[in-house]
Amino acid sequence: MNVTDVSPARVPQEARARFRAGGTGTTAGWAPGHVQANLLAVPADWAYDVLLFCQRNPKPCPVLDVTEAGGWTTPLAPGADLRTDLPGYRVWADGELLDEPTEVTGYWREDLVTFLIGCSFTFETALGEAGVPMRHIEQGRTVPMYTTARQCRPAGRVRGPLVVSMRPVPPELLGTALNATALLPAAHGAPVHCGEPGGLGIADLARPDFGDPVTAEPGDIPVFWACGVTLQAAVTASAPPFALTHAPGQMLITDARDEQYRVA
Amino acid sequence: MNVTDVSPARVPQEARARFRAGGTGTTAGWAPGHVQANLLAVPADWAYDVLLFCQRNPKPCPVLDVTEAGGWTTPLAPGADLRTDLPGYRVWADGELLDEPTEVTGYWREDLVTFLIGCSFTFETALGEAGVPMRHIEQGRTVPMYTTARQCRPAGRVRGPLVVSMRPVPPELLGTALNATALLPAAHGAPVHCGEPGGLGIADLARPDFGDPVTAEPGDIPVFWACGVTLQAAVTASAPPFALTHAPGQMLITDARDEQYRVA
Repeated sequence: MNVTDVSPARVPQEARARFRAGGTGTTAGWAPGHVQANLLAVPADWAYDVLLFCQRNPKPCPVLDVTEAGGWTTPLAPGADLRTDLPGYRVWADGELLDEPTEVTGYWREDLVTFLIGCSFTFETALGEAGVPMRHIEQGRTVPMYTTARQCRPAGRVRGPLVVSMRPVPPELLGTALNATALLPAAHGAPVHCGEPGGLGIADLARPDFGDPVTAEPGDIPVFWACGVTLQAAVTASAPPFALTHAPGQMLITDARDEQYRVA
Repeated sequence: MNVTDVSPARVPQEARARFRAGGTGTTAGWAPGHVQANLLAVPADWAYDVLLFCQRNPKPCPVLDVTEAGGWTTPLAPGADLRTDLPGYRVWADGELLDEPTEVTGYWREDLVTFLIGCSFTFETALGEAGVPMRHIEQGRTVPMYTTARQCRPAGRVRGPLVVSMRPVPPELLGTALNATALLPAAHGAPVHCGEPGGLGIADLARPDFGDPVTAEPGDIPVFWACGVTLQAAVTASAPPFALTHAPGQMLITDARDEQYRVA
């Protein structure tokens, strides 16, 4: 395994093998057409609250799979080891970031239930295919993300604000963008808001809470989609005694195809 | 409140008030355009298994809402009492049918978590609007339902077979029927199977496991959708110590509109 090879792998198994061997970095552009997933692992006695939080907030938290307690495998990626096959992880204790390792076998616990959650990389493929320009990709930046003033519907001990990603869309392509993503509810679905950022309590688009600011073209309308980072914000707000997540942008690459999740 | 009035109420609040006052019978055709829901209440220590079963089997079990333990209200139907406002209930002990009362206040327990699950009445409205004939309605029958040979993906202690409903569809309207229902994942979504019943292990369409046989027109293709009765089959197969469900066809009528659940 050549871990110095930095060109994105096109085959999911090869991508996971490279990350297992120590490769790291964002998975954006890797294994195009294959579903990537956010990861959150919590102790089993928090699993019901997390699952119910996801059910009550399906736009930011579309559940793709949930493991058995202690399990580190998923039918979405046969052969994958969820403890090693992502490029980077975050380890959380009482809602505080404890460590950012490249594998978590040393942190693993037999009572961990792992949630795999849909990711906007899936709908960015759909938007690109529909001819909608992705300004942040054109500009070589990470999509800007904002913590909104809107609270998710809580579930037991799990609560937190809605986090959104923003993409500027030319007005003539707004309907195209809405429809293309609406058909992918497993990847955050239709936007939660278009236009005026103040409607979500966002003060300044130039100062995202995560990712990079992006330059809009004249006439572009800011379009806001629910974002999987909502779950990391919930870890911070809810402070479970222990949690593991992926590092931002460093997702699980599954064998599932994007089009399997298109509803029509 | 005139409980002898048997014409379907058009307004959800009026429908629920009539059932609360003792009215009973199927809710088919009541409050058209409003979402109706399957109901299942289980002790809190079974709630995670049920919620995970629903997540793993979203076509038969699309979750619309989950109450807090002991709660009998839902934001989908403000003012409703889930213990009294359905026309009929079933009470289950260890997977066996114990009683079929018209209200369940006497059976209520403080540890019950109630699941509200999407219902095919929503997609039948969409099919009708799309011009797809509903043979069972034309023939004044309950839609035929079949227990298939396909097992749902289990979750903890909860397991059981997939139950499907069948509607004969003229071949030229097959695409219309698929698309109209695919856009309603909260109401079972696209069909799970079309054509040969043997593909689902169904021996004889003339002998449904629930509901009535329906007569197909020449050329009609049998189309099978996942069915909410799957959850009652799971109660039978999994035998939780206690459970409440609605009586078949006697659903919760919510204030939500069908179109709120259309993805595009």
